[in-house]
Amino acid sequence: MDLTEKRISGEEKYNGVIISVTLDKVELCDGKQTLREVVHHPGGVGVLPLDEDGNVYMVRQFRYPVGAPTLEIPAGKIDRHDDHLDTAKRELSEETGFSADEYIDLGCCYTSPGYTDEIIHVYLARGLHKGKSHLDEGEFLNVEKMPFDELFGMVMRNEIIDAKTVIAVSKAKLYLK
Amino acid sequence: MDLTEKRISGEEKYNGVIISVTLDKVELCDGKQTLREVVHHPGGVGVLPLDEDGNVYMVRQFRYPVGAPTLEIPAGKIDRHDDHLDTAKRELSEETGFSADEYIDLGCCYTSPGYTDEIIHVYLARGLHKGKSHLDEGEFLNVEKMPFDELFGMVMRNEIIDAKTVIAVSKAKLYLK
Repeated sequence: MDLTEKRISGEEKYNGVIISVTLDKVELCDGKQTLREVVHHPGGVGVLPLDEDGNVYMVRQFRYPVGAPTLEIPAGKIDRHDDHLDTAKRELSEETGFSADEYIDLGCCYTSPGYTDEIIHVYLARGLHKGKSHLDEGEFLNVEKMPFDELFGMVMRNEIIDAKTVIAVSKAKLYLK
Repeated sequence: MDLTEKRISGEEKYNGVIISVTLDKVELCDGKQTLREVVHHPGGVGVLPLDEDGNVYMVRQFRYPVGAPTLEIPAGKIDRHDDHLDTAKRELSEETGFSADEYIDLGCCYTSPGYTDEIIHVYLARGLHKGKSHLDEGEFLNVEKMPFDELFGMVMRNEIIDAKTVIAVSKAKLYLK
């Protein structure tokens, strides 16, 4: 069965700083019509930086939407025209000061394809070289160093629940074993 | 350093069917002010149903926001007042017809904590009993049976990229080994 839904018309409901929202009228595969809300997002990248001693460098920051600090891999949004790997290199440098000799592609994820087009690419970075971090205006975070195995334990015990971080750590564990 | 961001005021920008959007003025940890967009979502659950022969039951459906069909674990939104496990049981039954003797908690994830409060709980369901599926109005999907190991290979080869599915499959692999 072809499940394709076709756009009939659409209306922009919100045009913000990072996201915009449209409400489209669509035709379902049975010919009936319904409404689909879509949150449009530029997409992002996440990087798990792993040094030669088996330590990773994580970022603790306050996440206003969930009202709490979270521990996540260094990450950021894709600027228009930038590619994923360039964004990964830039965000790793901005947030932690590190550059890396090797970026291993761990794949990507749709964060929530029921209502948003956001896609995040994740990398494992190895061969780290320390430089100086340089955060964006209004960006505050702490970098925390820990053994990869400790981080993996935190993911499996549900102490870290940011989706891109869970995916990067789980895939890295399966990749590295 | 305390990184807490405090809400000063807020404005609702969109109030839709599934999501709403607010734009809040907040005070950062250095006393300066900025704006934070938040997409409010009721949250959801996902269930990976695994039978005694090592097969899983996946759902293929068209995801309008990403413009393509995806292969995902059975899943759905939490209705007001329902708890996660009840929602998991209901969605598994609605989409696949299965009930299960055992639901193993695989944890939860924030899908994208930079802009949304959405949280998804994932379960591994075992001891499956087949009944009859009963989809919501306007919901169209195909249920596909495959060996868990084939599904795991698809996740590792980046052929399945829905975040909750990647997390459920990766955690189940690490849990079951």
